[in-house]
Amino acid sequence: MGTKIIGVGSYIPEIVAKNEDFGENDFFNADGTTFSHENEVIIEKFKAITGIAERRYIKDELVTSDIAVIAAERAIANAGIDKESLDYIIVAQNYGDVKHGDSQSDTVPSLASRIKHKLRIQNPYCVGYDILFGCPGWVEGMIQAHAFIKAGMAKRCLVIGAEALSRVVDPHDRDSMIYSDGAGATIVEANEDKQLGFLTHKSATHTYDEAHFIFFGESNNQEVTNSRRYIKMHGRKIYNFALIKVPQAMKATMDESGLDISELKKVFIHQANEKMDEAIIKRFYKLYDMEAPAFIMPMSINKLGNSSVATVPTLYDMVLQGKLENHQVNKGDLIMFASVGAGMNINAILYRV
Amino acid sequence: MGTKIIGVGSYIPEIVAKNEDFGENDFFNADGTTFSHENEVIIEKFKAITGIAERRYIKDELVTSDIAVIAAERAIANAGIDKESLDYIIVAQNYGDVKHGDSQSDTVPSLASRIKHKLRIQNPYCVGYDILFGCPGWVEGMIQAHAFIKAGMAKRCLVIGAEALSRVVDPHDRDSMIYSDGAGATIVEANEDKQLGFLTHKSATHTYDEAHFIFFGESNNQEVTNSRRYIKMHGRKIYNFALIKVPQAMKATMDESGLDISELKKVFIHQANEKMDEAIIKRFYKLYDMEAPAFIMPMSINKLGNSSVATVPTLYDMVLQGKLENHQVNKGDLIMFASVGAGMNINAILYRV
Repeated sequence: MGTKIIGVGSYIPEIVAKNEDFGENDFFNADGTTFSHENEVIIEKFKAITGIAERRYIKDELVTSDIAVIAAERAIANAGIDKESLDYIIVAQNYGDVKHGDSQSDTVPSLASRIKHKLRIQNPYCVGYDILFGCPGWVEGMIQAHAFIKAGMAKRCLVIGAEALSRVVDPHDRDSMIYSDGAGATIVEANEDKQLGFLTHKSATHTYDEAHFIFFGESNNQEVTNSRRYIKMHGRKIYNFALIKVPQAMKATMDESGLDISELKKVFIHQANEKMDEAIIKRFYKLYDMEAPAFIMPMSINKLGNSSVATVPTLYDMVLQGKLENHQVNKGDLIMFASVGAGMNINAILYRV
Repeated sequence: MGTKIIGVGSYIPEIVAKNEDFGENDFFNADGTTFSHENEVIIEKFKAITGIAERRYIKDELVTSDIAVIAAERAIANAGIDKESLDYIIVAQNYGDVKHGDSQSDTVPSLASRIKHKLRIQNPYCVGYDILFGCPGWVEGMIQAHAFIKAGMAKRCLVIGAEALSRVVDPHDRDSMIYSDGAGATIVEANEDKQLGFLTHKSATHTYDEAHFIFFGESNNQEVTNSRRYIKMHGRKIYNFALIKVPQAMKATMDESGLDISELKKVFIHQANEKMDEAIIKRFYKLYDMEAPAFIMPMSINKLGNSSVATVPTLYDMVLQGKLENHQVNKGDLIMFASVGAGMNINAILYRV
């Protein structure tokens, strides 16, 4: 049995935080030392590397599960299905619901249960659970939905990626400018034709040396006396790791299909850092002694930043809706979803539209 | 392809907290009012209903993922397998790692990644993720492992249930005496003989009215001025819900197998409340116009309290090790795992040893 996407939806939060808005932040290095440049220069360098000019934040009164509901409703409407027909609600997230001004994650009940409650789904056999898998959580949720369908345990699943990283950022850490909020959702269902939908996939969890490349740590400002922790990363280590391991995983996924790389029309990759994503794509094609084709990789990071598990489904939704210039997806196209993030986890799905 | 348990391990924390240890607590009702009885009477009534005389807490220097590692090592040793042969590490938990004296949950990286790191597993294709599904998380993780095996996506999986509820209890809430810490783990693998191992299973997520029966709420002591939240429950609502829905799910699981109820040798049910568990078993058999057989339900709640996702695998490990009087499991026995908890989630697995 194959698996096919029949509906997509996303929610892009309304609050736009521009790079200039960080002009007055007191930034420190991880060791507490100050930078030798003014914020203006720090922000300019940040923009040049990450490609991020602005990012989106949810309103104070919202939490992650609220925006997940909006994305889910849009995916359900887009698929034109009866919500009671869902066998699973799989929610990829990493920090639970964190209220504005609070530091505690709320994960009980699971976000899946909160979302199902708000969707007013009555069917008790629609099973909802959360998966924690770093930024690649939505792609992994898709692989899990595919497993349930292949195993005959489900026919139709809702897979959501939702995160509000604005609730866990350290204002004294330059990296905080990377993070954003968002939600994306897809409806997948069993389909008879194995030539369409999911073709091959790979997942990997690198922990031997890499487990704590992305972690929860205290503020870079050593004058902060509380022990509150925030999302933190070893950017350089991640960059070097991703540049080797992600192209390998993508190639393994491609090669297992037996299809030719020249058929590949689009790569929807997790939007973490523009330069890193460009280098990954370049290296991926280099493994085939090729140059990366023009317009192979849609990008939304310039305007949306890194919204964790939400980047890939949001990006796919934007392209399907014709919202990204020079990017479209047509019936029969071979595409790839790929991601890398905390864990350190990597995954990829080769998919025929 | 079938799925069989080939190894079990658990960790029971060393610190014993007896009911008497709560003698000096200032208990309040959920609405902030005080009780009309002395603590001695409150504790006596608590003991009579829940069956809990003592519970276990982890040492100050430990967190949930630490005890999960110990249970996992024991399960791997018990199975006698090479840890590098694992395709998945599935970790059921609900609150992440919460340090002693802290209120923040740490879930990045996932506990699965932390555990894999500490187990020193190198194989990157051993995929680790966390599942949030309330107390039934370990049973659900087992069902997910079964799905991966059935789908041909895995041959061998480590499924862990680990929690340290002592880190999220409100000392002013009488219900806090229920909660405990613990970790249990199993190794499951594909087996050819479908008459052994997993036979049938059911999962349900009840959210329409029930989503917030177990929730994260502020202290019952209204003089506490911070907004720190703790595990909270509407006990009466849960009791009434569980007594109807859990026997139904168990019966659906039993009936789908086509086997006769008289064959069932043991029910390993989530240890949340002795009186509730006894009533569930009674009602389950009543659905077959039978009385519950003696020694059908091993219980550990008297000494171990409710350790969330850890109760069922720990209980199974204790029985396999001959640590519970009048309880043993023999090759060929038909047994059931069942659970109910936050979400509100319910699940059951019928299993041939």
